[in-house]
Amino acid sequence: MMRTFKVETEAQVQAIDITGKVDSEVAAAGVGDGAILVYCPHTTAGIYVNEGHDPDVATDVMGALEKLVPRNGPYRHAEGNSAAHIRSILTGNGCLLPVLGGRTVIGTWQRIFFAEFDGPRTRTVQVHFLGGGR
Amino acid sequence: MMRTFKVETEAQVQAIDITGKVDSEVAAAGVGDGAILVYCPHTTAGIYVNEGHDPDVATDVMGALEKLVPRNGPYRHAEGNSAAHIRSILTGNGCLLPVLGGRTVIGTWQRIFFAEFDGPRTRTVQVHFLGGGR
Amino acid sequence: MMRTFKVETEAQVQAIDITGKVDSEVAAAGVGDGAILVYCPHTTAGIYVNEGHDPDVATDVMGALEKLVPRNGPYRHAEGNSAAHIRSILTGNGCLLPVLGGRTVIGTWQRIFFAEFDGPRTRTVQVHFLGGGR
Repeated sequence: MMRTFKVETEAQVQAIDITGKVDSEVAAAGVGDGAILVYCPHTTAGIYVNEGHDPDVATDVMGALEKLVPRNGPYRHAEGNSAAHIRSILTGNGCLLPVLGGRTVIGTWQRIFFAEFDGPRTRTVQVHFLGGGR
Repeated sequence: MMRTFKVETEAQVQAIDITGKVDSEVAAAGVGDGAILVYCPHTTAGIYVNEGHDPDVATDVMGALEKLVPRNGPYRHAEGNSAAHIRSILTGNGCLLPVLGGRTVIGTWQRIFFAEFDGPRTRTVQVHFLGGGR
Repeated sequence: MMRTFKVETEAQVQAIDITGKVDSEVAAAGVGDGAILVYCPHTTAGIYVNEGHDPDVATDVMGALEKLVPRNGPYRHAEGNSAAHIRSILTGNGCLLPVLGGRTVIGTWQRIFFAEFDGPRTRTVQVHFLGGGR
C-alpha cells in the first residue's frame, strides 16, 4: 500500500527530479491501474509536477518562489523558516498521478519534483497506491 | 462514502486546525487502508496541510497570502472578494491524505488547516473515502 | 479508467470552464461512487476549481497570476515561457473531485477551470476514475 524513499537535499533551496525514484517504486509494487499519491510528510518542502527537460525551468521556479515569499520576512515564527512553510503551501505537498498498466502516465514533458525549501536535510517521500474505479 | 462537518469561522481571514475533526470522521467511518479527500465546497476558502505546533506559522501563512493578493485590488468582480477567490486557488481547495489501518498518516509536524479568506461564515468540509489499490 | 477531451484555447492567457465536458465524461463512463482526477498533462497550463457564475472572477484570477508572476522575468529558461510554468505550479495541474451516484459533487458555486498560460494551443485533459473505499 505504501512505499517510501529518501531524498538527500544539498542546498537550502533545491528542486530535485524524483520521477525515476517514483517509477521504481511503482514498478516494484506491481500495481495495475489506478493512481499514486506522491506525498511529502514535511512542512518545509513540497512536491510539484512540471518541466524537467531544461534544468533552467526548475531554477526559474525556485527563483520565483524566493521572490514571491522572501526568506527574511518580517515573520512571527521564531525558527526563521516561515518562508519555507509558505512556499510549501504554494506548491502543495503532494501530487496524485494516474497509473495505467502498471506505469505512471504523465505528460511527455512532465517530471515529478521534490522542492526543498529549508535544506539541506534528509527527506522522506511516501508513495501510496489507490485503486482504480468503475 | 462521504461525511461532512461544519466549521464556524470568526474573522475575515483565519486558519483553523481541523485535524481533530477529520480524524474523528475517519474513526467514525471505520475505514481501513486507502486515502481520504478533505474537500472544501466553497470558492473563497481553502484547505492546506502544514505546521500546527507553533500558531505563528499559520499567522505568517495568512499574512503572506494577504500581502501576495491584497484585499483591495483593483479587481473587476463586483462582490469585492476577488482576493479570497484567488487565495483559495493558491492554497487549493482540498487535500488527499493517506489512511493506513484506519488512521490518517501524515507527517509528525503536519496538521490540516481550513483557511477562511472571506469570513466570518459557517462553512462545510467534506471527507470522502477512497479505496486502496494493488 | 481514463477518458480524454480536447480544449482549444484562443489566447495566450485564458481560463476556460470545462465543467460541462468533465460531467459528460463522467456520465459516459457510467461510474458509481468514488472520485475523478481531472489531470492536465501539460507544463504551461493548470487546472483549478473556483467560482464560475461571474466571469469577472476568472479574469481577476488570471490577472492576479500575471501580476504575481510577470511574463517578462528576467528568467533563465530560453523558451521565454517560464512564467507559464510557474503559474501552472501555483494553480496545480490537476484536481480530485468526489463522485456520488455517478455525478460529480462539487460546491454550488464551484466550476472546474482549465487555465491556459502559454496559448493559444490545442490541449488535452484527462479524466481518471478512482474507486470508492470502505
